[in-house]
Amino acid sequence: VTSVASAGIVGLGLMGGSLARDLSARGVRVLGWDRDGSTVARAMEAGAVAGPLRGEAVDVLVLAVPVLDALNALAGWTAQVRGVRLITDLGSTKAAIVARAEALGVGDRFVGAHPLAGGERCGWGASRTGLYEGARVYLTPAPSCAEGVVSLAHALWAGLGARTETVDAAEHDRRLAWSSHLPQAVSSALAAALAGAGVPREALGPGGRDVTRLAGSSPELWAQVAADNRANLAPALAAVEAELRELRMRLDGGDLSPLRAWFALGGRG
Amino acid sequence: VTSVASAGIVGLGLMGGSLARDLSARGVRVLGWDRDGSTVARAMEAGAVAGPLRGEAVDVLVLAVPVLDALNALAGWTAQVRGVRLITDLGSTKAAIVARAEALGVGDRFVGAHPLAGGERCGWGASRTGLYEGARVYLTPAPSCAEGVVSLAHALWAGLGARTETVDAAEHDRRLAWSSHLPQAVSSALAAALAGAGVPREALGPGGRDVTRLAGSSPELWAQVAADNRANLAPALAAVEAELRELRMRLDGGDLSPLRAWFALGGRG
Repeated sequence: VTSVASAGIVGLGLMGGSLARDLSARGVRVLGWDRDGSTVARAMEAGAVAGPLRGEAVDVLVLAVPVLDALNALAGWTAQVRGVRLITDLGSTKAAIVARAEALGVGDRFVGAHPLAGGERCGWGASRTGLYEGARVYLTPAPSCAEGVVSLAHALWAGLGARTETVDAAEHDRRLAWSSHLPQAVSSALAAALAGAGVPREALGPGGRDVTRLAGSSPELWAQVAADNRANLAPALAAVEAELRELRMRLDGGDLSPLRAWFALGGRG
Repeated sequence: VTSVASAGIVGLGLMGGSLARDLSARGVRVLGWDRDGSTVARAMEAGAVAGPLRGEAVDVLVLAVPVLDALNALAGWTAQVRGVRLITDLGSTKAAIVARAEALGVGDRFVGAHPLAGGERCGWGASRTGLYEGARVYLTPAPSCAEGVVSLAHALWAGLGARTETVDAAEHDRRLAWSSHLPQAVSSALAAALAGAGVPREALGPGGRDVTRLAGSSPELWAQVAADNRANLAPALAAVEAELRELRMRLDGGDLSPLRAWFALGGRG
């Protein structure tokens, strides 16, 4: 990967672990940290990580922990790691971490990243090479970020086959509340309702399994995303509640035509 | 297919068209009807249908039209087609059609069928051979149905590689309201909310596309299923609304722990 010789990755789960695999495969010296020390050992055995990240100088520092944890990790690791040219993260929300980077005085080197990749499995065991191949990655540079640092972030992701798109952090969070966090919450709400009614996953058909697949995602990860983006997520949740209530009212009405119209609202025709 | 020499299929969409292809491939003489006459011609060209269904004697009569339309079709076609040993349908709700069969005096030959197969595409163009291979098919015999007729229905589906399961029609509708109709409605509600907020499908990640995939299904088909099963569907919809409202309340609360617990409710841990 262009001009990046070393990287420190904090968190070796699905996202950080996959990034470690890809960077190591391209000759980058990757140092890793995980709250579970045995994960670092496993990543070293797999050749994805050269050694544990402590206070060494690295070109790139990547925070790959849940979004609220990343706010604290940013302060701790930027104080500890020297010589960093690019600080980034992999979280699903961006406004708070960008603001924190500015507040900590490292905005000149901070470009947030949100790769639209992953899936409902999590942890090092789910990581794999090529996760970011072809994936869209939103980049949110801090306001004070230097142009060369932004270019480095683009080059890093392009080198892994990802398609980068630069967006404003606040705008990112508004958009993703609808396009990503809302689908996750709706899938979880359906799964919770089914669990509450005693309907096992095995009773679902292929369609029902698709709609509830995301509900198997990490509760910790999504609790932090939802909390961080609650100002944008709450009205989106209310909009889905309103649609479900509308459907119930049209069912009460008993006429087919309003039901047809409702089911066509979100259609692709 | 065991002892079935001929079949009449009313409706040559995804479900009926696929059944026509499979039965014809197994040497059954299939006659077909569709509200769109050109579809019958296309099915004949494809070798899935031997000719148009009019008043000929057939061993098996299959109603493969939306569930409320099937109630009317049952009366019309049973009066018109002679010598039928098994009358069945392919709809997603079963109580009303079983009751109608009894009311029409053809319960002795009626076994409702609901194959858990299909997908969000519909119409003859979406039909294919092997759709029912490995699929679960719920069978709901009318109370007065003869044992030999039930056996014939089982044999017919087993011959296509499907796994049959006999259930009471009312119990079927209660279960499927949660396991199938609710996921469809939730997917449609999410898609409707996204459309209302101006979020295009292209903005969704892989997870969001999964959750909204079903929303591309036929509005006509689902309007009829929802209307027919509204007594069971309405409380299921209310349960999902309650979960979404609960999430919003926990977001307002601002603590992570209740959010973690909520996202874990429907998890597979």
